[in-house]
Amino acid sequence: MAETRATDDLEALLTESKRASRTLGVAPAQQRHTAILAIAEAIEQAAGAILAANADDLERGRANGLAQGMLDRLLLDRARIAGLADAARALAELPDPVGEVLRRRTLPNGLDLTEVRVPFGVIGVIYEARPNVTVDLACIALGSGNAVVLRGGSAAERTNAVLVDAMQRAIETAGLPRASVQTIDRFGRDGAGRLMTARGLVDLLVPRGSAALIERVVTESTVPVIETGAGVVHAFVDRAAQLPMALEILLNAKTQRTSVCNSLETVLVHREVAETAVPAIATAMREAGVTVHADAALPGVEGAEPLGAAGWSTEHLSMDVAIGVVDDLDAAIEHVNRYGTHHTDTIVTDDADAAGRFLAEVDSAVVMHNASTRFTDGGEFGFGAEVGISTQKAHARGPMGLPELTSTKWIVRGSGQVRA
Amino acid sequence: MAETRATDDLEALLTESKRASRTLGVAPAQQRHTAILAIAEAIEQAAGAILAANADDLERGRANGLAQGMLDRLLLDRARIAGLADAARALAELPDPVGEVLRRRTLPNGLDLTEVRVPFGVIGVIYEARPNVTVDLACIALGSGNAVVLRGGSAAERTNAVLVDAMQRAIETAGLPRASVQTIDRFGRDGAGRLMTARGLVDLLVPRGSAALIERVVTESTVPVIETGAGVVHAFVDRAAQLPMALEILLNAKTQRTSVCNSLETVLVHREVAETAVPAIATAMREAGVTVHADAALPGVEGAEPLGAAGWSTEHLSMDVAIGVVDDLDAAIEHVNRYGTHHTDTIVTDDADAAGRFLAEVDSAVVMHNASTRFTDGGEFGFGAEVGISTQKAHARGPMGLPELTSTKWIVRGSGQVRA
Repeated sequence: MAETRATDDLEALLTESKRASRTLGVAPAQQRHTAILAIAEAIEQAAGAILAANADDLERGRANGLAQGMLDRLLLDRARIAGLADAARALAELPDPVGEVLRRRTLPNGLDLTEVRVPFGVIGVIYEARPNVTVDLACIALGSGNAVVLRGGSAAERTNAVLVDAMQRAIETAGLPRASVQTIDRFGRDGAGRLMTARGLVDLLVPRGSAALIERVVTESTVPVIETGAGVVHAFVDRAAQLPMALEILLNAKTQRTSVCNSLETVLVHREVAETAVPAIATAMREAGVTVHADAALPGVEGAEPLGAAGWSTEHLSMDVAIGVVDDLDAAIEHVNRYGTHHTDTIVTDDADAAGRFLAEVDSAVVMHNASTRFTDGGEFGFGAEVGISTQKAHARGPMGLPELTSTKWIVRGSGQVRA
Repeated sequence: MAETRATDDLEALLTESKRASRTLGVAPAQQRHTAILAIAEAIEQAAGAILAANADDLERGRANGLAQGMLDRLLLDRARIAGLADAARALAELPDPVGEVLRRRTLPNGLDLTEVRVPFGVIGVIYEARPNVTVDLACIALGSGNAVVLRGGSAAERTNAVLVDAMQRAIETAGLPRASVQTIDRFGRDGAGRLMTARGLVDLLVPRGSAALIERVVTESTVPVIETGAGVVHAFVDRAAQLPMALEILLNAKTQRTSVCNSLETVLVHREVAETAVPAIATAMREAGVTVHADAALPGVEGAEPLGAAGWSTEHLSMDVAIGVVDDLDAAIEHVNRYGTHHTDTIVTDDADAAGRFLAEVDSAVVMHNASTRFTDGGEFGFGAEVGISTQKAHARGPMGLPELTSTKWIVRGSGQVRA
């Protein structure tokens, strides 16, 4: 049924979003914050209906043989709903990025130039089976003055429908348009493709999900995209590393949480210290329950598994780590730039020069010295809200908060100036 | 012949650019500025060879029936070469954007976070028959620490080959890699398409040229693109406008130079003052040699031509202007947002509230009050260099100078911190 709706309906829906974005673009921060607080309240009050819809989605997911990881992401419970409401309330406390003056100059002819932050307008979000994204992104969009169009996928369709309905009613109580937050789930698979090519109606597209989803969006989209990418994250244990510090960072980066993009996938060890460091690392990893992978014999390590399907570019997102020995700092930098995903990479060393070169020459969104890669996170960076981690270089790179969901505009004030 | 080269060769060339970009990324500003100055020198010294190659291109262009406007853009003479060299020298005086600290914070756990500007890496430029872009963009890329891959089109192929050869030799004298600046013109039409999909090798693509070219790049590219777009530029003469100021601004915006994206295309007049203002504007335009277009009878104006082929969205780039009457400020804003290209739009008024609403609600890269739209220009804005005018909202909006050709990177310095 849903699939047969005319695309004209989708265009009409996006046009409504565009209209709503114009209202949001000039709405005072206080009004947008009031809407976010109303959403927090509404989500909590609608918990019963949300959980019932979620149970339906979960049952359908199980019947359709959805993987356990997917079912986990799909699941909402009272604690998670409370968490969503809390996150929304915290967001309403953040400073408003809209209107912030970035540059200002007065030209010799008296023209006054001001570059200010403005909302993008309409932000499209394409994601999979994660109802928390529905609420998070709706609130982040409001917090940055944008309208949002959500395409959450069929697996979470009922949960998302209830969530969006509750949020729309909350937004209306704050005097803002319902269409500030809309879902296009009912347009089925066609909806995602249309969102990707809706130039002029959608100003920015944010894919959240699997590498395959992101690849599809980047390839097919004619609307500007922020790539929130996979993390083939490296740690380089330099010859001048303190081994105990290295072990602590490696274990934290690998095991503190494995399913996230900032978790460690590959350890590179400087050849000069490999004989001591590699067995120590492998043993510590195994004791922590991590399976060690390698592409060649590792000094002092027996029974390493082969590398994953994508070789050194494998993103395990599990209790697996690849360990390799590199000849020197140059080889380490070369390896990271070649096989990594330009997300987060760290060097452990007491050599300031080696650290300086690694930080300068590794071409990643976040480069670290003597720190766990798990710190690449909007919350840890103090952004308050996180849209995702951008692994592209245009517009935003690394953790994205509210300012990253804004564009800019030059305002020129004159008194009749013309060009000579 | 050129068309049959294996695509592997192109991949090898882009890989060289990538390698060069790593060197440029850590090269001090002084060395890059030395290379730019060497380019200025080399271009002047190679003037004879450049003019000979350009004469060949022009002859071939005439034989192939190239339009006069295209031939004009293709033409180099001694004065234009001197202008290119002067622009390069001016560029070498600009502050270096690389390494600029944008944000810095220390987390409670002692982690030190710094966001710095870094070069993109490899910038692709696709343009048509404008050899000045070859030199400008090569120098701008060096000034922002980027390698550049140029696809200048077959019409200017010989000129560009001589220019690139001269620039590469100059860059080498500064101790930087030849591959800092490369052309892929010899790969023919296939080269442009390959550049658009060279993810991982090309970090940013800048199309410079016709609306059709830009449309193709935006549609086909999987590499991030900065859209330097067309300008359907508006002036709104409000009911509270001073008519003499309005006339001066309108004439300047329309006639000071017509072939550029910031020139005026549409005048909107508030209905309350239309009876006086419209005939005054039409008469002044006609006296200046401008043809007046309209979609309905204009008060006090006879013989207006119909609108252009694209109606209110026509970009004439010629001595033609469309004039329309709108009911009020809301209608003016609605018209500009609907038919414009989000480039530059100006309001002429003495009403501060009306100006405030126009500046806030018109969704364009540059919005102006009582000023000529011709000021939207990197040079006028004091940027020293101009890559183009971005009409998209992601990454850069409005005139783009050196900082707009940089990305950012978070540098995290720790002392063994792990995440709890």
